[in-house]
Amino acid sequence: MSEALAELRRRLDSIDDKILELLRQRNDVVAEVSQAKLAAELPVFVPHRESEKARSFRRRAAEQGLDPDWAEDFLRMIMGASRAQQSTARFPRATPEAKRVLFVGGEGGMSRLFAHFFKASGHRVRSLDRDDWNRVESLTAEVDAVIVAVPIRRTASVIERLAPHLDASTVLADFTSQKADVLRRMLAAHPGPVLGLHPMHGPDVENLSKQLLLACPGRDPAASRWLLQQAGLWGMRIKTVDPQAHDRAMHLVQGLRHYLALLHGSFLRDCGLKPEQILDYSSPIYRAELMMTGRIFAQDAELYADIVLAEPERRRLLERFRDHHERLAALVSDDDKEAFAQEFNAIRDFFGDFAGQALEESGYLIHRLADRFA
Amino acid sequence: MSEALAELRRRLDSIDDKILELLRQRNDVVAEVSQAKLAAELPVFVPHRESEKARSFRRRAAEQGLDPDWAEDFLRMIMGASRAQQSTARFPRATPEAKRVLFVGGEGGMSRLFAHFFKASGHRVRSLDRDDWNRVESLTAEVDAVIVAVPIRRTASVIERLAPHLDASTVLADFTSQKADVLRRMLAAHPGPVLGLHPMHGPDVENLSKQLLLACPGRDPAASRWLLQQAGLWGMRIKTVDPQAHDRAMHLVQGLRHYLALLHGSFLRDCGLKPEQILDYSSPIYRAELMMTGRIFAQDAELYADIVLAEPERRRLLERFRDHHERLAALVSDDDKEAFAQEFNAIRDFFGDFAGQALEESGYLIHRLADRFA
Repeated sequence: MSEALAELRRRLDSIDDKILELLRQRNDVVAEVSQAKLAAELPVFVPHRESEKARSFRRRAAEQGLDPDWAEDFLRMIMGASRAQQSTARFPRATPEAKRVLFVGGEGGMSRLFAHFFKASGHRVRSLDRDDWNRVESLTAEVDAVIVAVPIRRTASVIERLAPHLDASTVLADFTSQKADVLRRMLAAHPGPVLGLHPMHGPDVENLSKQLLLACPGRDPAASRWLLQQAGLWGMRIKTVDPQAHDRAMHLVQGLRHYLALLHGSFLRDCGLKPEQILDYSSPIYRAELMMTGRIFAQDAELYADIVLAEPERRRLLERFRDHHERLAALVSDDDKEAFAQEFNAIRDFFGDFAGQALEESGYLIHRLADRFA
Repeated sequence: MSEALAELRRRLDSIDDKILELLRQRNDVVAEVSQAKLAAELPVFVPHRESEKARSFRRRAAEQGLDPDWAEDFLRMIMGASRAQQSTARFPRATPEAKRVLFVGGEGGMSRLFAHFFKASGHRVRSLDRDDWNRVESLTAEVDAVIVAVPIRRTASVIERLAPHLDASTVLADFTSQKADVLRRMLAAHPGPVLGLHPMHGPDVENLSKQLLLACPGRDPAASRWLLQQAGLWGMRIKTVDPQAHDRAMHLVQGLRHYLALLHGSFLRDCGLKPEQILDYSSPIYRAELMMTGRIFAQDAELYADIVLAEPERRRLLERFRDHHERLAALVSDDDKEAFAQEFNAIRDFFGDFAGQALEESGYLIHRLADRFA
């Protein structure tokens, strides 16, 4: 019996070997695609081509008796790896001539990440960090764009110190996670083109393909258009947003999220229950939750405090959140199931169809997590 | 130029067709493996075999110049689908003869899910729901095991009503998400074998392979061993836990998690910012967070209130959480960055190496989410 099973397993191994060999061949073709795209100055990520490919892959998977949903996941995974591979290569340049780009805070993670991509597209990159202010004249000379990427608490002073050295034709841009105030300061300090940017990812991503770049035009958008076009050639999704609306959303997306994770982690510590112990009792969904909280504490305390306590408006929002919690906690103290269910239903109405989408997407995540780590 | 690209894309399509054809062949072999395992009475999920397979797959992927980490994800995905396929087939039976299993609350999702698996293993399944109490004598007659799977607020009364009808040799088990109190009630009401169970997944899973089943032995564990062996043959991971430790962990895993999601969702509603709008400003990590919160609101309000307000101890824990929040919120009001960073560092020490693991696992999730949905 076990011999029959062993023989079947050898057949599986042999099929898997053939799949690996085909994936290798696929990589070789993808390398040629990279070259061809580079020559034709085409971006890495073409949404239209991906969805077309997904449709035909689903159809052909169904013809082979495979589950089309599963097959699409499978294809997305292959295509993700393919984009990653293309991103290690060179990129087309958005401009006929090489541009000079200066990163202020050039030794930070985001600066180094983007410097790599500018260089891989044939531009020239300079770096100005804490110890380089004595060379500010030569570093800003004939530079086409300056990108300020320093911790938020230093952004205002850096802009004031830097701006007087810039030529009126230089694009002044920033990567700060608050936009309204910083944009105002840049416009006041620099008479030339101004562009607010906020890349919605960390410095640890392997490539920029599919990543979201939020853009707030400040002054003379035509002069900085090449910057956004260049990001598009790296495969980034670019979205123009209103600075005030951006900041309001960020109070929740960055402020509240980090604060909630702190509350969660801090209370686990208060209860003295180690995350490793809780994993013994975890459903895949709580495992995912715990991982999302735990990742915060692999980061830097000062950066964390900067994000949560960023500005008065964010602090007021968190105070309002505390008051909100107070009201809900009263329902718990009163063991008021009816009021609790009412609150729940009101939120359900507010979430509407999104709840169904969330169930599906998070269900996908949870299955992946169970496949990979359980 | 675009002709060269089109030709390369045709080559990719042709390679993808060959991969699909191999996946189909693989499914055929997996179907034979299922049959062989059934004949040999072997479980679907064999952790040892999976890790061995993963090691050799990584090695061979590296030989083909593919990233071993990526290749392992890829393999886990193929193997997950393979387990799912095996789970649609029949299962070996843990006992020489068919057992009779009665589900109380038999029309609920968990009952129906497990009833399916018992039947697929050759056992006989009965169902007792609200309207069947007039037939309780015949339904409990000669039954080998009774599994109580009713909403938590009805568990105690159902046990009291049911127990007098059971033969002293019948195993009394339950699926309730609280263990200490329910186990005490079962032991008091029934003189025969007692086993507390808590499957750590919802009724919507496609198969039980790799799912966690927590077990609290009550009385005469030898008499109920076949139940756990049967679950093992479905591929479940079985963990014996102390009922009190289980309940303490569940206050956090179920109670606090659901409560935090309510706080988050309820505050978004208070702010009037629709989830769809926030997605426009979301990093993949916040998207994952929002999906984890949003999924709660695709569920039932009453079930939700039952989970959060389950018992006095859980409510006291949530009150303690409110007080804890109060203390942290004071740091926000005072804009006390230093104390905030201190709190952060204390939690980081408490999380220890787990934070690194969390960064890696959640990073994996976030990449999958970006590949699939962005």
